Amino acid sequence: MKRGKFVTFEGCEGAGKSRQIQFVKELFAARGVDFILTREPGGPAISEKIRAFVLDVNNAEMTAECEALLYAAARAQHVKQLILPALESGKTVLCDRYIDSSLAYQGYARGLGMDYIRAINAAAAEALPDVTLFLDLPPAAAFARKGGADRGDRLEVSGMDFHEKVYAGYLEVCARFPERVVRIDCSGTKEETRAKIAAALQERGIC
Amino acid sequence: MKRGKFVTFEGCEGAGKSRQIQFVKELFAARGVDFILTREPGGPAISEKIRAFVLDVNNAEMTAECEALLYAAARAQHVKQLILPALESGKTVLCDRYIDSSLAYQGYARGLGMDYIRAINAAAAEALPDVTLFLDLPPAAAFARKGGADRGDRLEVSGMDFHEKVYAGYLEVCARFPERVVRIDCSGTKEETRAKIAAALQERGIC
Repeated sequence: MKRGKFVTFEGCEGAGKSRQIQFVKELFAARGVDFILTREPGGPAISEKIRAFVLDVNNAEMTAECEALLYAAARAQHVKQLILPALESGKTVLCDRYIDSSLAYQGYARGLGMDYIRAINAAAAEALPDVTLFLDLPPAAAFARKGGADRGDRLEVSGMDFHEKVYAGYLEVCARFPERVVRIDCSGTKEETRAKIAAALQERGIC
Repeated sequence: MKRGKFVTFEGCEGAGKSRQIQFVKELFAARGVDFILTREPGGPAISEKIRAFVLDVNNAEMTAECEALLYAAARAQHVKQLILPALESGKTVLCDRYIDSSLAYQGYARGLGMDYIRAINAAAAEALPDVTLFLDLPPAAAFARKGGADRGDRLEVSGMDFHEKVYAGYLEVCARFPERVVRIDCSGTKEETRAKIAAALQERGIC
């Protein structure tokens, strides 16, 4: 049995990740690719429970280290219970966020360091993506695109510093893993972004 | 402010740890030691929630890596939110289990390796115990002491292999950290064990 391909999606909030994942799902379905779609944090039941716990607003006093270790725990379970078995059965695996989110958010933006994040995520080394699509849209552009409609909501001014740091973290990830991570410029129309994603997947022999 | 002392208790199941911790509490109270008692996994609310999750029998499919990372997450929160602040305020901290439980149970008995456990528990390096009391009673002796009364229960025959491995893990911990870990022979009466514990605490200047 030929091992399946592993494709991950990364990006800052507002980069249009969900929409583009939906496009890739449709592309795969149209081309008869045998695939599963999963997400992080999440996947199997245990990892989804950890997701709910990490994202619970009642756990506001959670430290950055605790948060990073919970993400790593959810990922370890995800890799062993779902991702590796699927790849070994020949399926293509699409995953919404993976190790690079931890590197950008916890390693870089929260300041824990990328080496620490890699050390606690040894499980991810057993299932490294064949290709990672980084949907590149700087937070200021994502904010402008939203027209400031919910200015008081997610991408509020007080959070922009953090989102800028996450973006800088992703650029560092791109610089460190140029073989694996493909930077998809998302500053154009969604159709232009789609064409770039389809081309990147074809070039890498994914579909 | 003089930093407080940090004392941890370790041992296999059935070694009499709870009873001896109760004794140390009484000893400290009698001698006017300003202390707090805490436990692992557990301590602050977030760590207690992680404890409940790890020990939940509905999560039986949890992998060893996921389990080890959850224990590390609970510990990171415990160290930052409770142990370090207490030590810095001059209090003595007593803790029922700590990093050595992870080394013996997950690192040695579950085969993840002690180096991996140390890597994911970097937070514990910021708060290493001044003294660790290893209550040394081999599982077979603990089993015999119980008279086989609940032979079908906790220390059942099918689990003995695992408990023997944990015990071997603790012996490895003793060998690796001879400066920090004091082996308390618990094969005698509980009064004899108490006397050994009191002597060890006095020798180390704890009370």
